[in-house]
Amino acid sequence: MQIVKFVSAMQRLAKKWQRAGIKIGFVPTMGFLHEGHLSLVKRARQAVGKNGKIVVSVYVNPTQFAPTEDLSKYPRDLKRDLRLCRAENVDAVFTPRDEEMYSASGAGVSPVRFKRKLTGETPVPLKNFSAYVVEEKLSRTMEGASRPTHFRGVTTVVAKLFNIVLPDVAVFGQKDFQQATIIKRMVADLNFPVKIIVAPTLREQDGLAMSSRNKYLTGDLHRQATVLWCAIQIAQATLKKSKTFPAAKLKVAITKLVECEPDAKLDYVEFFEPETLSPVSKIARGTQMALAVLIGKTRLIDNARL
Amino acid sequence: MQIVKFVSAMQRLAKKWQRAGIKIGFVPTMGFLHEGHLSLVKRARQAVGKNGKIVVSVYVNPTQFAPTEDLSKYPRDLKRDLRLCRAENVDAVFTPRDEEMYSASGAGVSPVRFKRKLTGETPVPLKNFSAYVVEEKLSRTMEGASRPTHFRGVTTVVAKLFNIVLPDVAVFGQKDFQQATIIKRMVADLNFPVKIIVAPTLREQDGLAMSSRNKYLTGDLHRQATVLWCAIQIAQATLKKSKTFPAAKLKVAITKLVECEPDAKLDYVEFFEPETLSPVSKIARGTQMALAVLIGKTRLIDNARL
Repeated sequence: MQIVKFVSAMQRLAKKWQRAGIKIGFVPTMGFLHEGHLSLVKRARQAVGKNGKIVVSVYVNPTQFAPTEDLSKYPRDLKRDLRLCRAENVDAVFTPRDEEMYSASGAGVSPVRFKRKLTGETPVPLKNFSAYVVEEKLSRTMEGASRPTHFRGVTTVVAKLFNIVLPDVAVFGQKDFQQATIIKRMVADLNFPVKIIVAPTLREQDGLAMSSRNKYLTGDLHRQATVLWCAIQIAQATLKKSKTFPAAKLKVAITKLVECEPDAKLDYVEFFEPETLSPVSKIARGTQMALAVLIGKTRLIDNARL
Repeated sequence: MQIVKFVSAMQRLAKKWQRAGIKIGFVPTMGFLHEGHLSLVKRARQAVGKNGKIVVSVYVNPTQFAPTEDLSKYPRDLKRDLRLCRAENVDAVFTPRDEEMYSASGAGVSPVRFKRKLTGETPVPLKNFSAYVVEEKLSRTMEGASRPTHFRGVTTVVAKLFNIVLPDVAVFGQKDFQQATIIKRMVADLNFPVKIIVAPTLREQDGLAMSSRNKYLTGDLHRQATVLWCAIQIAQATLKKSKTFPAAKLKVAITKLVECEPDAKLDYVEFFEPETLSPVSKIARGTQMALAVLIGKTRLIDNARL
C-alpha cells in the first residue's frame, strides 16, 4: 500500500493507472476509520473489481468546519487508519497536509497562522486560495442552514480530491444524506467523469449510526444518542399504521421524544423529497427523513427513507 | 475531424485517447473563429505534438452573459468555424446545445423558456442546475466589476469543459488577461490536472486586438476602436521616457484620449500587478495595463505588459 502526501505524486500515480486502463475506486474520509468507512471501501472494491485500484483519502478538511466547531479536537489516528486500510487491501492512502491542499506554494505562511486562517467566515481568508465550488440550492436547508459554510468546504475539497485522485467511481456514505445528494448534483452539473455510489449506513448494535464523532459519547451519552434511531423507528412505525401522516405533527412528537433525554437537544428534524430535498407537509412511503441532535456537545445526524 | 454534440460522447472519446496515452490539447472558444483563435490552436498543436489530439469547443456560453448583454446577437457561423478547424487539423470540435450543458436531463424545459432562464441575476435560475465554480478575489475588479456575474459563468463552463474534454493542456488568449489569470487560479486551487498556456494577442494591421466582436464595428467605428491600442502605446511611450509614472496621471491622459473619439466611452483603465491583479499607484516596467472601452454599443477590451 502506498502512502501519498503530495498532490503531484497522487496525480502521477492516478494518471499511470489511467493509462494502464486500470479502474480507480475512491473513498474520501476524514480518517479515524470505523466499520462504516470500511464498508465503503468494500463497496468501492466491488465496483472496480480485483484488478482495480482503491484510494482512500484521510484528510480532516478544515474549510468545512466553522470556527466554533470541533476541528482541533476532531479525532485522529493515522497509524490505526493505515493499518485498517492495509487490511482492506487499499492500494493507496492519500493523506496531505493542509498547506498542500490550500496553498499553491505554502510559502510564507507559518503552519499555526495557516491553520487559524483555514476556518472562518466565508470567504475563507486564505492568502493563496480563492476558487471554490458552491452548490446553491440543495445546500441551503438542514446541515447547510445549521452550518452555513460547511457544504462549500465539502464541495470544494471533493472537487479537489476528484481532480487529484482521478477516480472512475467514488463511494459516499448514506449517513451524510444531504452531502451525498449535493455531491451527486455537483458531479452532474460540473460533468465530473466520476460515478457516485451511495452506500448504506452501518449501525452499532443499539442502532446508533456509526460515526467518528461517537468517540465523544462518554458515560450515559452513548445511550442517549440512540434517540436519533428511536426517532426514525417511530416515524417508520407511524407510516406503517397510516399511509400518510402530517409532517408537522410527527415533528412535534419527535421533538418531545428528544427532550426526554437529559443531554439531548434537537437541532432539526425534516421530512422531504429525497432527490430535491424539498420539504413535504404530508409524509408518505418514500419520504426521506433526516435529523440532527446535540448530545452533550456532540452534534450527531441520521436519516432514513420512510 | 469529429463533430461532437454530446457530453457523454466527448468524454468517451477523451477517455479512449487517455487510455491510449495520447495527449489532448484543448482550445475553448465561443466560435466565430478568427486568426487569434487559430493561433491558439497552433499553440495547442505545438504543445501536444503531431501524435496528440486537438479539441476545439465552439460554445456561446449563456451563463457568462448578463441579461443586458449581447448573447442573442453574438456572432455565430458554425459552418465556417468547422471549415477553419478542419484546415488546422483539429481532431474534434465539441459543440453542445445549451440544454446539454445546463440541464442534466433537459426534460420539461422548452428551448425558448430554457434560453430565457440561462441569463439572469445570480444565482442563475436554472431548474436542474445549481453547482458553480466561483473565484472570489481576482474576479472582483475590472471585467468582474463591470460584469458582476461574468466570471462565475466563465469558471463554471471552463470547469465543465475540462471535465468533458479531459485535456492535458488548454490554451487561452492573452487578450482576456483577467480571464486567463482567473483560470490559472482555478486550476491551481481546484487541482485540475491541466496545464494552462496563455498565448499572445493577435492584432489587425492597425493594432486593433482581434475579437469576434469586431464584426460589430461598422463604418468609422473600426477606426475609432484603435484608440485602445493607442492608449497602450501611449503608456509604453510614457514609461520609455521615465522609469516610473503615477498611475492616476496616466489614467487622466488616457481618459482624455478616449473622449476624443466621438463614439468611444471609457469603461475602465487599470494598472496592476500581473499575478495578483492588485492596482499599483506607480507604474513601472512589468506593470500590467488593461482597459475596456465602449465603441458605439460594442464593448472592447485590451491589455499589455508595460
